[in-house]
Amino acid sequence: MTKNNETGMSAQIDGVTGARRGTPYVAVDHERMIRNINAMQERATMHGVRLRPHVKTHKCLEIARLQLAAGAVGLTASKADEALIFMQDGVKSIIVAYPMLDPHKLDRLLQASIENETEIAFIADSAEGVTAIQLAALRHQLCLPIYLKMDVGLGRIGIPPGSARLITLAAQINSAHGLKFAGLLSHAGNAYAATSVDQVKSIARREIGILEEAKNKLESELGIKTPHLSVGATPTALADAIHAPTTEIRPGNYVFSDLTQLRIGVCTTDDLALSVVVSIISVNNDHYIIDAGSKLLSSDLGPHGTGLNDPVYGMASTDQCVRTPDSWLPVVMLSEEHGFVRRVGTNLALGTRLRIFPKHSCSVVNLTDVLIIEKDGKPHAEWAVAARGRTQ
Amino acid sequence: MTKNNETGMSAQIDGVTGARRGTPYVAVDHERMIRNINAMQERATMHGVRLRPHVKTHKCLEIARLQLAAGAVGLTASKADEALIFMQDGVKSIIVAYPMLDPHKLDRLLQASIENETEIAFIADSAEGVTAIQLAALRHQLCLPIYLKMDVGLGRIGIPPGSARLITLAAQINSAHGLKFAGLLSHAGNAYAATSVDQVKSIARREIGILEEAKNKLESELGIKTPHLSVGATPTALADAIHAPTTEIRPGNYVFSDLTQLRIGVCTTDDLALSVVVSIISVNNDHYIIDAGSKLLSSDLGPHGTGLNDPVYGMASTDQCVRTPDSWLPVVMLSEEHGFVRRVGTNLALGTRLRIFPKHSCSVVNLTDVLIIEKDGKPHAEWAVAARGRTQ
Repeated sequence: MTKNNETGMSAQIDGVTGARRGTPYVAVDHERMIRNINAMQERATMHGVRLRPHVKTHKCLEIARLQLAAGAVGLTASKADEALIFMQDGVKSIIVAYPMLDPHKLDRLLQASIENETEIAFIADSAEGVTAIQLAALRHQLCLPIYLKMDVGLGRIGIPPGSARLITLAAQINSAHGLKFAGLLSHAGNAYAATSVDQVKSIARREIGILEEAKNKLESELGIKTPHLSVGATPTALADAIHAPTTEIRPGNYVFSDLTQLRIGVCTTDDLALSVVVSIISVNNDHYIIDAGSKLLSSDLGPHGTGLNDPVYGMASTDQCVRTPDSWLPVVMLSEEHGFVRRVGTNLALGTRLRIFPKHSCSVVNLTDVLIIEKDGKPHAEWAVAARGRTQ
Repeated sequence: MTKNNETGMSAQIDGVTGARRGTPYVAVDHERMIRNINAMQERATMHGVRLRPHVKTHKCLEIARLQLAAGAVGLTASKADEALIFMQDGVKSIIVAYPMLDPHKLDRLLQASIENETEIAFIADSAEGVTAIQLAALRHQLCLPIYLKMDVGLGRIGIPPGSARLITLAAQINSAHGLKFAGLLSHAGNAYAATSVDQVKSIARREIGILEEAKNKLESELGIKTPHLSVGATPTALADAIHAPTTEIRPGNYVFSDLTQLRIGVCTTDDLALSVVVSIISVNNDHYIIDAGSKLLSSDLGPHGTGLNDPVYGMASTDQCVRTPDSWLPVVMLSEEHGFVRRVGTNLALGTRLRIFPKHSCSVVNLTDVLIIEKDGKPHAEWAVAARGRTQ
């Protein structure tokens, strides 16, 4: 396969600037993104659950608005200052699905939630966490919804299944002035290590099983009702039916998808909405050297430390529509500003543009200030990654 | 070892805001950084070579000014828009050590170099690259210095040793109106894969040997004088004497250093000027969960794809001055906004602050908008990462 820099995407004129856009840049295929947004909303609606997308993937006001317009009940955020941006944009309901202990961050958030009339919910997995949120609620004369976070297999944060902490913390919340128990919340990030859709299905079933058992325990031991069971991860949301008694899903990555979802088997190449457009700046015997490295493509080989056994950072295509993965070339090494694409017998010219599909879209978005929204493969609009760099 | 959140750095008051600074943030120890800057300058001066630091590591105007004030002859940059920021700050000499083929980027750069009276030099490793720079020079009625880039073992960009391309390209430059041959330039990034200082020494000797042989060949075959032999990488600059006939060194990472330099053996723990200050937000049986993940610590395990065989993303210290690596705890896994620190028999409280030393400082700086400059372990100033996000 020999192509030169006049083929494929390389000749295209930028719909934003009218000139040929310089590389590298992060591109989003508008049609695929809209399809992904609608498909997840339809799944949620069909299974009678609320959809509350995680903004970590896009960090972008315009995309959040599309998700809400499609039917999402609100948003999920990780960091306080990430949530703030969306509150200030008028979003009326946000779960900060991250343990908040710092009173200053809580004050910032609650002040903004009052000003913007946003309902904000928190999570906790410790007595200290519950107390921090209670004290913040009292300082601001609010009654705050709080979820207990359950560990369903990732071994990160959350109450392990069977732990007595569930009862202790639920009782603490139940008796705390300023708090209302919102339910149980989980993230099956362990699904990213799955090697088949069947594994993901069994992780999803185990997840809701753990939540349901905890819910029953709270009812039988404390007489506490659990309003919501909120689960969240793209693989589990896409692999199977969303099982009762789930009430809410919080996937994030689905909006763009990536090669990790493709490997797991929960998307097709036609769902890959995010790519990085690069140029070949040098050619050696083994590799095309491209003008993006770890500082734009990211060294992330997959979510939650997955992918280390397959050190390929993305796949490069010379086509616009990219429905023929057979011709993709692997990105096998990254310097900071250079990527190494294995030539695999091809002979592409200097200056040829390639489209790189990454292993983990969320990490790539975190490295750019702007997303280039493409329609029919051409730059059409620039959307800011408004919450990038909001690390606190 | 048991500590609580009132020990060590955790009680410190922010010299910038007067309040306790929220975590996570990227901290730079001012004293160590100044020491690193001065030590490299002294090495360069002692060996009679020019120092032209690479700004990719810090992307920060204040730090570049310190490097220039200490005696650097100018700066090195990778990307056009990265170089622009420093030109606009009044830097008078910059090498863009990156193959530039895009006429629009070249025009942007040259326009700014005229406006700011900056001498700008380029590199090339292809006929197309030489031509692109020549055409840009003619468009702007300039005579531009251009280096030929040599591959000294990384297998990335550059002319391989012994390749006939050396003579062809030097002849092309020599006969090109608008260009002047500035010399030969290399980056021994392969030194990052070294497992001992002796290996780095031999890589450094091989590097200058390749450049010297090429220089001699240009003189004997074309009668062309080579004004400069410019080499650049922190390990090779620190491992050994800087060998004649080197005329310039371009290290970047030395300003902060990191665990990769420590592993190679070219720095001590006392040189580690960059860290990420985090808090413990959850504790499980095996790990402390901290409030920074791949989106601030980066998933980069080392420069140029090194470190994959040791998937530890950094080491966590509870001390301020951190001279006792025996007590460091490894960061063994990253989610996007969470890090997993192995507990190794310790019992630290929720809220305890830890200081993470990363494997690769350059990748961490690329993820933050601001560096918190610390004096005596306390936040003292905020310096913008002015060139962050300048990917073109």
